Amino acid sequence: MGGDHGVDAVIPGAAQVLKKNPRTKFLIFGDENKIRPVLSRFKALEKVTTIHHTDKMIRDDDKPSAALRSGKGSSMRLAIEAVQKGEADAVVSGGNTGALMAMAKIILKTLPGIHRPAIASIFPGIQGQTIMLDLGANVLVDAENLAQFAVLGAVFAKAHKKISTPNVGLLNVGSEETKGPDHVRGAAAILSNVDFPGHYHGFVEGDDITKGVVDVIVTDGYAGNIALKAAEGVGKMTGHFFKQSVMSDPFSLLGSALSFMAFRRFKKKVDPRVYNGGVFLGLNGICIKSHGGSDAVGFASALTLAVELVKHGYIKQVAHDIGHLMSQETFLSEGAYGD
Amino acid sequence: MGGDHGVDAVIPGAAQVLKKNPRTKFLIFGDENKIRPVLSRFKALEKVTTIHHTDKMIRDDDKPSAALRSGKGSSMRLAIEAVQKGEADAVVSGGNTGALMAMAKIILKTLPGIHRPAIASIFPGIQGQTIMLDLGANVLVDAENLAQFAVLGAVFAKAHKKISTPNVGLLNVGSEETKGPDHVRGAAAILSNVDFPGHYHGFVEGDDITKGVVDVIVTDGYAGNIALKAAEGVGKMTGHFFKQSVMSDPFSLLGSALSFMAFRRFKKKVDPRVYNGGVFLGLNGICIKSHGGSDAVGFASALTLAVELVKHGYIKQVAHDIGHLMSQETFLSEGAYGD
Repeated sequence: MGGDHGVDAVIPGAAQVLKKNPRTKFLIFGDENKIRPVLSRFKALEKVTTIHHTDKMIRDDDKPSAALRSGKGSSMRLAIEAVQKGEADAVVSGGNTGALMAMAKIILKTLPGIHRPAIASIFPGIQGQTIMLDLGANVLVDAENLAQFAVLGAVFAKAHKKISTPNVGLLNVGSEETKGPDHVRGAAAILSNVDFPGHYHGFVEGDDITKGVVDVIVTDGYAGNIALKAAEGVGKMTGHFFKQSVMSDPFSLLGSALSFMAFRRFKKKVDPRVYNGGVFLGLNGICIKSHGGSDAVGFASALTLAVELVKHGYIKQVAHDIGHLMSQETFLSEGAYGD
Repeated sequence: MGGDHGVDAVIPGAAQVLKKNPRTKFLIFGDENKIRPVLSRFKALEKVTTIHHTDKMIRDDDKPSAALRSGKGSSMRLAIEAVQKGEADAVVSGGNTGALMAMAKIILKTLPGIHRPAIASIFPGIQGQTIMLDLGANVLVDAENLAQFAVLGAVFAKAHKKISTPNVGLLNVGSEETKGPDHVRGAAAILSNVDFPGHYHGFVEGDDITKGVVDVIVTDGYAGNIALKAAEGVGKMTGHFFKQSVMSDPFSLLGSALSFMAFRRFKKKVDPRVYNGGVFLGLNGICIKSHGGSDAVGFASALTLAVELVKHGYIKQVAHDIGHLMSQETFLSEGAYGD
C-alpha cells in the first residue's frame, strides 16, 4: 500500500523478480480491491501469490509512536508479523520508514547482543559497489555498536557481492590513526584486533564512498545520513544543470540526440532505482525499505536484495558471527575505549 | 611555494585578480629565483608586487606540529606574519592545510571569545550558492561553537553574496525539532532565541547543500568534512562514468562534439575552480587555503574571496557580531543545553 505508486510499483516489481527467481512466493498485504485488478495482469505471479486483505494502512505522515500504538491490523504490521511467524522469509515495504523501523524492532526484535539495528544501502562506485551503514537509524553510537555494524555489513556484502572476505572501512575525516571522534577510533581499535567475517581496511573518507575502494563502509547514522543525502543532492544538481545546459542551444540538443546511447549507458551506471533498498540489519528477520518514490524497477531491486539475503541464510550467519565477535576478549577490552 | 603548481598558479592567478581589482597590492613570499621569471611576464602585476625572498618552505607532508616547531622563516609563516603585523590584509596559500591552520591559529590568534576557528567553503546549488562550515577544523564542537559558526558564516555570506540578512540552516538528519545530536539541537535552541546577523532557517539535510535553499549551512567538522568529500566523490564518479559512456560508440562521440557549447556551460556551473578556497574563519586575520591542485583560475577564486572579505571589513564586523552574540542572556542560558 505504501510509496507514491503503491500496487503499481509493488506488483510489476514482484513479477520481474519472479522471472529471475522462479521459486519465489509472494504474500501481498493490503486492500484486495486495489491489489486484485493489477495482479490479474501478471498470471505467473498470481499463481504464486497470496493476498492478505486489510483496509487498514499506515500513512506516510504517521509518527512511529502512533503507528506502534494504533497500527494493529495494518498492512505494514501484518507483513512484518508474517516474518515473525515464519510465514514469510522477508518483508519489503515502500511505506513510512520510521514506522517500519519502529514496528520491525518491536515485532522481529534485535538479534541477541545487538542493541542498535542499522540501515544499509548500496552505492555505485568507480571500482565497484560499496555497502554503507548506518544511514540514519542511530544518531549516537559507541565503538562496540560500530564494530557490530561491521559484522552486519560484511555478511550482507558476502550475500550481495558474492565475495568471501569483504574489505571493511570506517568512515572518518582523515586516514591517520589519530584523527576523528572517539567512537570511530574505538571501533578501529576493536576491528584491528578481532576475528570477524571481513578484512579491516582502516579509515576511509567521504570520497571513498563512490570510489569503490572497500566493500563495506561503517559509520554512525549521523554522518551516514548526511553523506547519503549530500551524495543524492549532488546527483540531482548535476542532472539539473546538465539538462539546462543541453536545452540552451540547438547544436547541443542535436548532439545529445546523437548521444542517446551514451546517455542510456550512463544512466544505467548511476540509476538510483538499481541502488534502491534500505536494508534494516541487526533484526531477527529480514526487513527492507524501498524508496517511497520507486517505480516497479526500483521495487524489484529492493525485492532482489531480500531474495539474496534469504538465499544466503543471512540471519543465521550473522547471528553466529555477532556471537563470535562478542565472545572475543579483544572485543570486550577494546570496546570501552569508544564509550 | 605551495600546491601542485606553485608560482604557475599563484602569479597568473594574482594577475587575473588585479585586472578586476586594480587597487590590490601583492606580497609574494618564497624563492625569488622561481618567482621573478614568472612575475616578469605580468608587467602590471610586477608593479604592485613585493617579493619577500626565502629559501625555506613547509612541505606538503610536514606534520602541523613540525611546521610549528621549525617553520620560522618559511614562506608560509612569513606570509601569515605579514597579516599579523598589518603589512598585508589577508594571506592566501596553496600549501599544507594542517600547517597553515596551526600556524594561523598561533600567529593570528582567534577572535575574542572564539575557542574554535572553522573552515568555510562555497558550494554550487540549483537555486544559488551556499556557504558551509565547519569543513574539518574541529571534530568535536558544542552548541555554543555552532552558534558562533553561524555568525562567522553569516558575515561571510554578507560579504560574498552581497545580501543583508543571510538565511542560516543547521545540518541535521531530519527537519523535525526532536531529531539529531545534542550539540545540533542545542545550537538550534540558541539560534532561535538570539539576535545575530542572519535569519535562522531551521534544520537542513544533506541534499539541501546543493539545493541552495539557505545561504549558510552550519555543521561540525566531522559531518561537514564527510559531506564535502562525499559530494566531491559523486562529482568525480559522475564525470568518470559520463566520459566512459561517451567514448564507447562513434555516434555518441560525434554527438558530444556537437554539444561542446552545452558541456562548456555545464562545466562552468560546477567548475571546482570557481568554488576554490577554504576560508579560515574565527581568526584575527583573513587566511584562505587554496586547493593544492588548483591552477591559476582556481587560485584567482581563492584570492577573490580574500578581496571580498577585506573590502567588507570582515574581521571588524565579525568581532563586533560575535561580541553581541555572546553578550545576550539567551546565548548563555541556552548554550548549556548542547554541552
